[in-house]
Amino acid sequence: MKKNALSTTRENDFAGWYQQVIAEADLAEESGVRGCMIMRPWGYGIWERVQYLMDQRIKATGHENCYFPLFIPLSYFAKEAEHVDGFAKEMAVVTHHRLMKDGDDLVVDPDAKLEEPLVVRPTSETVIGTAFARWVQSWRDLPVMINQWANVVRWEMRTRMFLRTSEFLWQEGHTAHASRDEAMAETLNILEMYRSFSEDVLAMPVVAGEKPENERFPGADATYSIEAMMQDGKALQAGTSHFLGQTFSNAQNIRFQDKEGEFQFAYTTSWGTSTRLIGGVIMTHGDDDGMRVPPLIAPYQVVIVPMLRDKPEDEEVLAYCKALAKDIAGLRAFDEPVRVKLDVSGAKTQTKRWSWVKKGAPVILEIGPRDMVDNKVAMIRRDALYQDSGKLDTKFLAKDEFIPEIPALLTEIQTSMHSEANERLRNNITRGFDDWAEVERFYEENKKYPGWLEVQWCKATGDELEAIEERLKKLKLTFRNVPIDGAPVDGSCIFTGQPAVERIIVGKAY
Amino acid sequence: MKKNALSTTRENDFAGWYQQVIAEADLAEESGVRGCMIMRPWGYGIWERVQYLMDQRIKATGHENCYFPLFIPLSYFAKEAEHVDGFAKEMAVVTHHRLMKDGDDLVVDPDAKLEEPLVVRPTSETVIGTAFARWVQSWRDLPVMINQWANVVRWEMRTRMFLRTSEFLWQEGHTAHASRDEAMAETLNILEMYRSFSEDVLAMPVVAGEKPENERFPGADATYSIEAMMQDGKALQAGTSHFLGQTFSNAQNIRFQDKEGEFQFAYTTSWGTSTRLIGGVIMTHGDDDGMRVPPLIAPYQVVIVPMLRDKPEDEEVLAYCKALAKDIAGLRAFDEPVRVKLDVSGAKTQTKRWSWVKKGAPVILEIGPRDMVDNKVAMIRRDALYQDSGKLDTKFLAKDEFIPEIPALLTEIQTSMHSEANERLRNNITRGFDDWAEVERFYEENKKYPGWLEVQWCKATGDELEAIEERLKKLKLTFRNVPIDGAPVDGSCIFTGQPAVERIIVGKAY
Repeated sequence: MKKNALSTTRENDFAGWYQQVIAEADLAEESGVRGCMIMRPWGYGIWERVQYLMDQRIKATGHENCYFPLFIPLSYFAKEAEHVDGFAKEMAVVTHHRLMKDGDDLVVDPDAKLEEPLVVRPTSETVIGTAFARWVQSWRDLPVMINQWANVVRWEMRTRMFLRTSEFLWQEGHTAHASRDEAMAETLNILEMYRSFSEDVLAMPVVAGEKPENERFPGADATYSIEAMMQDGKALQAGTSHFLGQTFSNAQNIRFQDKEGEFQFAYTTSWGTSTRLIGGVIMTHGDDDGMRVPPLIAPYQVVIVPMLRDKPEDEEVLAYCKALAKDIAGLRAFDEPVRVKLDVSGAKTQTKRWSWVKKGAPVILEIGPRDMVDNKVAMIRRDALYQDSGKLDTKFLAKDEFIPEIPALLTEIQTSMHSEANERLRNNITRGFDDWAEVERFYEENKKYPGWLEVQWCKATGDELEAIEERLKKLKLTFRNVPIDGAPVDGSCIFTGQPAVERIIVGKAY
Repeated sequence: MKKNALSTTRENDFAGWYQQVIAEADLAEESGVRGCMIMRPWGYGIWERVQYLMDQRIKATGHENCYFPLFIPLSYFAKEAEHVDGFAKEMAVVTHHRLMKDGDDLVVDPDAKLEEPLVVRPTSETVIGTAFARWVQSWRDLPVMINQWANVVRWEMRTRMFLRTSEFLWQEGHTAHASRDEAMAETLNILEMYRSFSEDVLAMPVVAGEKPENERFPGADATYSIEAMMQDGKALQAGTSHFLGQTFSNAQNIRFQDKEGEFQFAYTTSWGTSTRLIGGVIMTHGDDDGMRVPPLIAPYQVVIVPMLRDKPEDEEVLAYCKALAKDIAGLRAFDEPVRVKLDVSGAKTQTKRWSWVKKGAPVILEIGPRDMVDNKVAMIRRDALYQDSGKLDTKFLAKDEFIPEIPALLTEIQTSMHSEANERLRNNITRGFDDWAEVERFYEENKKYPGWLEVQWCKATGDELEAIEERLKKLKLTFRNVPIDGAPVDGSCIFTGQPAVERIIVGKAY
């Protein structure tokens, strides 16, 4: 029987498996600081790849990077009532600026109290909007399209590495436009950028759509999201794009003179993705042997493990491996140099192999004295680790024939990982429910892997929506989004029996 | 008479000139948040280049990037007494985690007080050392060599953009080693990396050396720095590398079993450079027309300004410029694609030209209908803006001959900017003082541009050093560093008359 590298399987304990992948793949660890994690080199390396590739897309669509302050004066939040209601419950507040000795103890100096408390940014609409108000005077100053890569803090009661941490890293885009149409187009362009990034780069298929009223960003007129399906069938909101209308420009006085000389309030947008994406990648691609990293975001795409045995031929094996690494580094895949690592650490070959399997390097090459003599490589493909028999599927290949095939192999792995995840997503959205009782029956019958449902509904708002939310809550469900490419309606709302207005995704979520 | 782009000159008001460059070059602006600035796209773009190029060097020397928490529990600081003494006076402290409504006001919720206050990191030795203690068990785990790019906060009473802000961006490297020699070698390797980076990339010549005891990082056994000379003759400490000995490993229990099975404390180092480097670049290269950005760190190396006049031929001019931009983008300089910008904003040609002069783009090309017909470009070199007559030195060049010369031109500008600054540095260090009275006389006679002094001294410590510091302070001087490549001593200490031990740089500093 096949024995996997992790002791916890997805099937037996998905949450435990997730924690184990993070530990065994050296992605991150608890920091000892409440709700904050340490991103270790392999985990942070994946984030660097995400940053690098998304930054290109952000810049290519006309945005420029800036950097705004970590601290936001309390009074900035007071300006926009709905926004503060949405965030006020979970912010870190700086109240003092000095420590002092009290005998042998170190304490906060009571004399160093700030006149106005400073909030550690949970998001930057308020401070960036204040800058926009200075920058925007005339229609000629519009659009303003900026982005920042930053850390933000939201005080979370229950945290989970990558998915929900008090501090996290993200990018937040902020734009101001002269017209509603232009701002809405920006909101949807970014949604599409997130969708294609997630599919093409992370190999993580998603459903892009609009959130219902109750799931909107505090202060937004409309919120769009991409939702990814994890291997336990739950949804992960992986990115959001908000059309803020004139709410923030009113609160912060982002006004401009139009071509006719009239004063108008600008229309603004904001949008973000975070280190949460890495949580999504783990739960989309990981398996019972650990992480599997799509080649585009793998810090190393090919890892070479020399089989060293403290014998005289070690040196020759190393020389062979170095030459191999050099040849591979000279290749290009996905329009970039191939990232190759020669693992010369002191551990045993077996340990090194499994460490890279658990980390999820896409291609692992083992080179022993025999391979050297035969001019071969022993190749393991992380996305196809085992033969049907359960034996490790190591392929012995002629080195000179294999090397030039590496770029195509990496592309194939990228595509194949996407296909596998995409099939899972598409096969696990159940449709065709006529009423709420059917939904309840479905969940009764599909407790372990219900996946998502797509139902027709009346697009309720206000109290009616709240009542529906309560019904969903009893089954631990939430609305995810209304797919932008959803089919037309042809029935009635499963909640109210009224004529349906649109189709909406329902599921359990992280 | 030549009229410069800025209203304030370096000669008349250096501090005012510095602020004006920052504003007119769109580098940064005050944020409205005490001590924090907003880095605008051009300023942040320069920082992105600094990050990109330094990150390559950090990784090439065997370091890996990680990310550690923004918050450090108060108790972590209590462990290392000297370290906390050095930082305790200037830290932002988070004491609460929630806001609440009090009538119409928004206030800090008194019920949401943290059990233990959290300090916003001023630097991360304490939290990273705690992780090292977990990671390091055996000699096989060493060395640990990591780096992070992060924001840090030091509560500053008097702030100045880029040079001293409460929040700033930086990289901090942290390493742990099995032996003193290896840790010292790392400290000096990084010092040399900083020195060469500053000279080769920023075109900012520096003196690399060791700080005297009184200028050491809190808790360090030795601190090394690179010091750059600004155009007003003051010194800017532009990067530091600390040999921490076993101070932090003792406080944080970073212990390992050596090959003989004995427990040993590791030797650690830390080192950092920050957005302060940009302040240094401004005061090294800026002139009375604004910023001058060395080509290696210029977000755009070549800017094309089409002369558009709302006339039918505009379209042809634009097409010519687009083709030109495409040709230039296909070139490589410094082993990277050339970064070119076609400025199609709505402003007048004159305004656009001077905006890029003030921003300091290395090469500015103006293209009018006439140039198009003649197949020419009108080229301005930012580092050689004027003819001797004071007229703008615009060169009219045959396009097809000019394009292939761009890479060499950019290299020449980079080299020439370094030479100019280097000459200034080398010519403004005065040597040969025999006693303190001579120093006093020198400062009396050279009030405006004294530059730096190199003096021989006895390497005083403790009370003796304190007394010397007081004397320096009266002339507003501080010790900068003892150059690592300093000449041997041949005289006596100018402060005490004792035999000299080494040569040390003295100057006014930022």
